[in-house]
Amino acid sequence: VTGEARLRSAADDAFLADFAELGAFGRTPAGGVDRQAASPADVAQREWFEALLVAHGLRVEYDRIGNQFGCWDRIAGAPYVVVGSHLDSQPTAGRFDGAYGVLAAAHAVFRLMESAEGFRFNVAVVNWFNEEGSRFAPSMMGSAVYTGRLAASDALAVADRTGETVENALARAGFLGTGTGPAMAAAAEIHVEQGRLLENAGTTIGLVTGSWAARKYRVTVVGEQAHSGATVMGDRRDALYGAARVVVAARDLADDYPDRLHTAVGQLEVAPNSPVVVASRVELLLDLRSADVSVLESADDRIRRRIADISQQADVEIELELTHAWDLDDYQAEGVALARRLAEELGLPHQQIRTVAGHDSINLKELAPTVMLFVPSVDGISHNERELTRDDDLLDGLALLTGVVRRLALGDLQASS
Amino acid sequence: VTGEARLRSAADDAFLADFAELGAFGRTPAGGVDRQAASPADVAQREWFEALLVAHGLRVEYDRIGNQFGCWDRIAGAPYVVVGSHLDSQPTAGRFDGAYGVLAAAHAVFRLMESAEGFRFNVAVVNWFNEEGSRFAPSMMGSAVYTGRLAASDALAVADRTGETVENALARAGFLGTGTGPAMAAAAEIHVEQGRLLENAGTTIGLVTGSWAARKYRVTVVGEQAHSGATVMGDRRDALYGAARVVVAARDLADDYPDRLHTAVGQLEVAPNSPVVVASRVELLLDLRSADVSVLESADDRIRRRIADISQQADVEIELELTHAWDLDDYQAEGVALARRLAEELGLPHQQIRTVAGHDSINLKELAPTVMLFVPSVDGISHNERELTRDDDLLDGLALLTGVVRRLALGDLQASS
Repeated sequence: VTGEARLRSAADDAFLADFAELGAFGRTPAGGVDRQAASPADVAQREWFEALLVAHGLRVEYDRIGNQFGCWDRIAGAPYVVVGSHLDSQPTAGRFDGAYGVLAAAHAVFRLMESAEGFRFNVAVVNWFNEEGSRFAPSMMGSAVYTGRLAASDALAVADRTGETVENALARAGFLGTGTGPAMAAAAEIHVEQGRLLENAGTTIGLVTGSWAARKYRVTVVGEQAHSGATVMGDRRDALYGAARVVVAARDLADDYPDRLHTAVGQLEVAPNSPVVVASRVELLLDLRSADVSVLESADDRIRRRIADISQQADVEIELELTHAWDLDDYQAEGVALARRLAEELGLPHQQIRTVAGHDSINLKELAPTVMLFVPSVDGISHNERELTRDDDLLDGLALLTGVVRRLALGDLQASS
Repeated sequence: VTGEARLRSAADDAFLADFAELGAFGRTPAGGVDRQAASPADVAQREWFEALLVAHGLRVEYDRIGNQFGCWDRIAGAPYVVVGSHLDSQPTAGRFDGAYGVLAAAHAVFRLMESAEGFRFNVAVVNWFNEEGSRFAPSMMGSAVYTGRLAASDALAVADRTGETVENALARAGFLGTGTGPAMAAAAEIHVEQGRLLENAGTTIGLVTGSWAARKYRVTVVGEQAHSGATVMGDRRDALYGAARVVVAARDLADDYPDRLHTAVGQLEVAPNSPVVVASRVELLLDLRSADVSVLESADDRIRRRIADISQQADVEIELELTHAWDLDDYQAEGVALARRLAEELGLPHQQIRTVAGHDSINLKELAPTVMLFVPSVDGISHNERELTRDDDLLDGLALLTGVVRRLALGDLQASS
């Protein structure tokens, strides 16, 4: 089939044409997209996606956190195989992250609608609300509310920097439903890898066995506002200097655990942030990730000691607050085995992989058997307008996802568990 | 007279009462003020100040950049001794910085109006527009336009972060005049020290001989946007990490020249500044100041070499652009001598001092003999809501400023030059 993938079917062409259309929403001059949750571009693509689902005979519904479901109702009262990802993006992002998984899910269902013999379950395509979390924190909001991990009332009350709440933004856009969405029997998601392990190994499919563990912190550095010219150096209690040393310490920490620890500070806010004022307060978000929980525990200990030193040397107060933490989190082994068998049947080169990034399916697997698949990212580039996955890889992933959804709808994972 | 200062006159009480009223505009909960240029609080205090000047018989006029003048017109056609400072403030600041100098100037004139025998010049109180530069860059805008150092058209076109221009903000508030203000024969300004040299020495008056030299830079760090979890550390080109190392290098640089170099980064902006995105771009403002130009030249060379190293090690591009530079800049020695004589007559402990911070009078002295005076700042605290100068020091400064303006109006510095 790998050889055959070069000979594209009409269904393949239809997928690529729809994906090109989808990539136009929120298009940036550099060829990426900007479609943060419930932004005008996100609203526009959701309307387009609803029309696509309806045109293919699916029933569209929205739950109380704005998750968008395209339900293929065949068996009255049966639960659903829920398959999808997210259409929202970071402020300047690529057009594959999330969007590929949503459109691949839709096209997998369109293909299955031709023959659904023996299906025990209905199937629902889903576009999870606010996976990225860049406008409204936390990330993976829609799937977290769907699975009950996050209270709907808490999520709806979250405000962006302008003070607009999730509830208002969804209501204005017409995407605020009332229910809890279709009941889930099993789940699947396909996503671009956002790393370069598949590319380096020359494989097409990542069989995701689980996620890296993570610790996320809010670091608050408090100094004393002062004139940045007149104040003698020894009198300064400079919050930005303290924060800069924390950023450097976080990066250095990764060098202590080569290839085993990822560290990052992506967001940092300075107050009052004026050219001639020594900063009184800086807040930053620190992120530690590893496939080894003992590495995370050791790194947590080291960064705390390092921050205590910085606090003393820079004469600032530094508070480290753990805001999110998850340990190694595995998908059901039966799902990995199912995907491997189907990849072999299709002749697709595959390998097991752990995801470093979070995905909605991490929430879903707590409630039902869940299969997570990756396709390669060229040069591992992600959260970047230059993000790219090649057409052949997109189509191979779609073929595999279609097979996985078929087996899930037949009840394969229920039978084996 | 120092002893007598404890016995306050009615004029002293009037000054303190007016200063208490002025401190209420833009008052913050912590007891400071927030009255950035042309903000509602700045507009309100300007209206209050206009009423005060008019009530004392002065004629108020605004020039084309919104400088507020209270003119005491006695001698038709004669130029003016221009005395004042600025009422605008940093976002969270103290109520002494600038405001003291404006109100002291007004009260000095109120006192002189009782006896102006032999005056060769008129006198004008001034509240310079936008000395702080926190909302509209650059700082010292009003005095720079007044002296011709900055083109009015350029200043009026400057926009704040919301896109509002100086011209629109001034026009809306009713402070956009058309002329170039009263002609200047001489100038004086009194200001709080914003350092602790006077306090440490136990003196009441700083006779400002000149300013420190300064070099101001815009530093732009360009990396590559990436997923902050998934991207392997070796592939990252993290602009925030590069910028953090520049902030640390700037602070370390000061240690190479103890007590001879002040360094600061007060403003830093991260893009896209999202929790799960490696930053693609950071802009920061770097400020080097010294009383020794050769120290600045050596420091400039060192920071450039250090930045080249950081650029290579962090795999980011760093551009260093010199945006403002000034060398040691002296006030006229005759003005310093005049102020010293008057301080001695009043029995006020005094010392010579260089200002590290910029002041409007630095612009003015290019065009006319200018006297600059300091009173102590408790603990040297400035650009901070806890900024404080004691009432007795405020009144001693006012007494000296009144004497200085009298001598300037009599033409003392013109006679000696």
